[in-house]
Amino acid sequence: MEINPWGNELIKDYEELFTEFGLQHVPEELRKRLSESRYFRRGIVFAHRDFDAFVKSADKKEKVAVMSGIKPSSRFHLGSKMTAEEIIFLQKKFKAKAFYCVADNEAYADNGMAYEETAPLAVDNVADLLALGLDEKNAVIYKQSECLNVLNLAQLFARRTTLNTLEALYGHQNLGLYLAVLTQAGDIVQPQLGEFGGKKHVVVPVGIDQDPHLRFTRDVAAKCGYVLPSSTYHRFFRALNGETKMSKREPMGILTLNDSPELVRKKLVRAFTGGRATVEEQKRLGGEWRKCVVYELMLFHFEDDDAELAKVKRDCETGKIMCGECKARRVEKINAWLKAHRERRKKAMPKAEKLLSR
Amino acid sequence: MEINPWGNELIKDYEELFTEFGLQHVPEELRKRLSESRYFRRGIVFAHRDFDAFVKSADKKEKVAVMSGIKPSSRFHLGSKMTAEEIIFLQKKFKAKAFYCVADNEAYADNGMAYEETAPLAVDNVADLLALGLDEKNAVIYKQSECLNVLNLAQLFARRTTLNTLEALYGHQNLGLYLAVLTQAGDIVQPQLGEFGGKKHVVVPVGIDQDPHLRFTRDVAAKCGYVLPSSTYHRFFRALNGETKMSKREPMGILTLNDSPELVRKKLVRAFTGGRATVEEQKRLGGEWRKCVVYELMLFHFEDDDAELAKVKRDCETGKIMCGECKARRVEKINAWLKAHRERRKKAMPKAEKLLSR
Repeated sequence: MEINPWGNELIKDYEELFTEFGLQHVPEELRKRLSESRYFRRGIVFAHRDFDAFVKSADKKEKVAVMSGIKPSSRFHLGSKMTAEEIIFLQKKFKAKAFYCVADNEAYADNGMAYEETAPLAVDNVADLLALGLDEKNAVIYKQSECLNVLNLAQLFARRTTLNTLEALYGHQNLGLYLAVLTQAGDIVQPQLGEFGGKKHVVVPVGIDQDPHLRFTRDVAAKCGYVLPSSTYHRFFRALNGETKMSKREPMGILTLNDSPELVRKKLVRAFTGGRATVEEQKRLGGEWRKCVVYELMLFHFEDDDAELAKVKRDCETGKIMCGECKARRVEKINAWLKAHRERRKKAMPKAEKLLSR
Repeated sequence: MEINPWGNELIKDYEELFTEFGLQHVPEELRKRLSESRYFRRGIVFAHRDFDAFVKSADKKEKVAVMSGIKPSSRFHLGSKMTAEEIIFLQKKFKAKAFYCVADNEAYADNGMAYEETAPLAVDNVADLLALGLDEKNAVIYKQSECLNVLNLAQLFARRTTLNTLEALYGHQNLGLYLAVLTQAGDIVQPQLGEFGGKKHVVVPVGIDQDPHLRFTRDVAAKCGYVLPSSTYHRFFRALNGETKMSKREPMGILTLNDSPELVRKKLVRAFTGGRATVEEQKRLGGEWRKCVVYELMLFHFEDDDAELAKVKRDCETGKIMCGECKARRVEKINAWLKAHRERRKKAMPKAEKLLSR
């Protein structure tokens, strides 16, 4: 089984990852402790590496950091939102300094996008991050292309890295992607540099597809005498067609935080559900919410109230509500959330611009 | 035939390089025009790529640049002096902006030297450069580790580079050295960035062992729409034992600009000459100056007066002077030069420190 951070395949069997790659389950106790976060409470964050060590360190009031980032190749979609909300939650919960990398060099390496193309998207992305609630006073927000620390760490790590290691982790890729891996390792290690108070526990909340980067970074961090970074992993959010991972590579299957109410409605109408072949059948057997992308939208993103979510599920499986009506209600809920978010985002734009100007 | 920029082999047959790698001879006319430089006048600079295009551009009063650098892994030796003097000459002759890179990241990649080790050497090296006469008002002197432009160009070039290309040029090397190659390409292309007035002809005066870097850089510059850099190549200076190339990898065979008079004397006493087996034989047959490292020291570095140099040669080949006496005179000449240089260097130290502090 392979995990490919540059692809958009869905993971079929999550459990296999634990045995094959040595991931750790999130223990019940920790899930309870972190239950304010929908992602932890609902098991969407389902695996980790050494997150317990991070928590222990934070509990001892040691300095800790949370690190993640975005490739500014498009506007925020729901996957970027998930990572951002996790950073924001961990920043607050553990008084962790947040590092947020705008990976413009990776956008070039992976997508061939020049700085002129990614610069406005970067501002847009950071405005989303701020609107979602990041405390920028306890944060370092930066572009890779403007961060000497990170670029130099990539250069230093190169000496400790063999091509065989990279090929084993990623398959045969071009040199640009290999260098992007080294640079991302630099992003993850940066919070341990002297100017940020030196070695410390850093947690990286990401999608499970990013685990190869974490394995690589832990390897090179160990060689260079840094604390091994911790990580938490969330499940993939499916594309609206129910098939591939929701990904910027599949724009038609994506909700972005900038979609107009009308566009959201259109996308939802076409979204894959767990509806039956006929109304009669659905009334009799109930819908299959486990298959339903619209249900998943509520579970992951737009229904924070567990009781409400349970009601959605019940109404579906008892055949009380048909997909059309259900979708109409969810569109309303989603659009209300997006409207409020857009207002917060608009207010955050000048700050985002300022944070990224140098 | 292979050229290895990281080794210390001597090139046995320079002529082969022209046919195999497409180097160009320096035409008589250009040698005459540039005869103020000992290196051009005496054919020590023996080959180039597109140097004529650079000259043509400079003659049209277009903006041009000269670029080279040093790996701050030791103090200046005679090889570093040669490159520095070429930069200084070309800067002055063509009113070219000089770019001088202190390749501290390469010192790590190639020699494992940390910034703390290379930082004081960097200051020392730049003081030598200034003492030799660089006009720092028309120059950009920088460390790789502090230059976003260069580090980002390395990242951008990675996308346009295949591992096969690097392996064909350099053989199988570690990723650190490959990245050093990309970074050096960044150094060479930097003068063409917008902040320095955009695309232009840049000449890179280096030792012939650096040609693979130039071939690589010309390839990637073409792909990215920059003007192909020009280059000039000097012959290797042999180590004092007469065998390997003078190189920091062979410290016993090196003269550095910091050697004490006594150390210079000791090194010269042991240096390889063209002396015969016996005094009698040498008086009868004359010495073989073509083999003599001490003669080469004068030719390359310490005897700028062609008439004087001709006399050294004549006295040798007519058996008029024995190696012991000859060495004693040359030691005097070298030490006088080094003494004057040391004084200039001392004066230049504060400026060097200032130029490299940020």
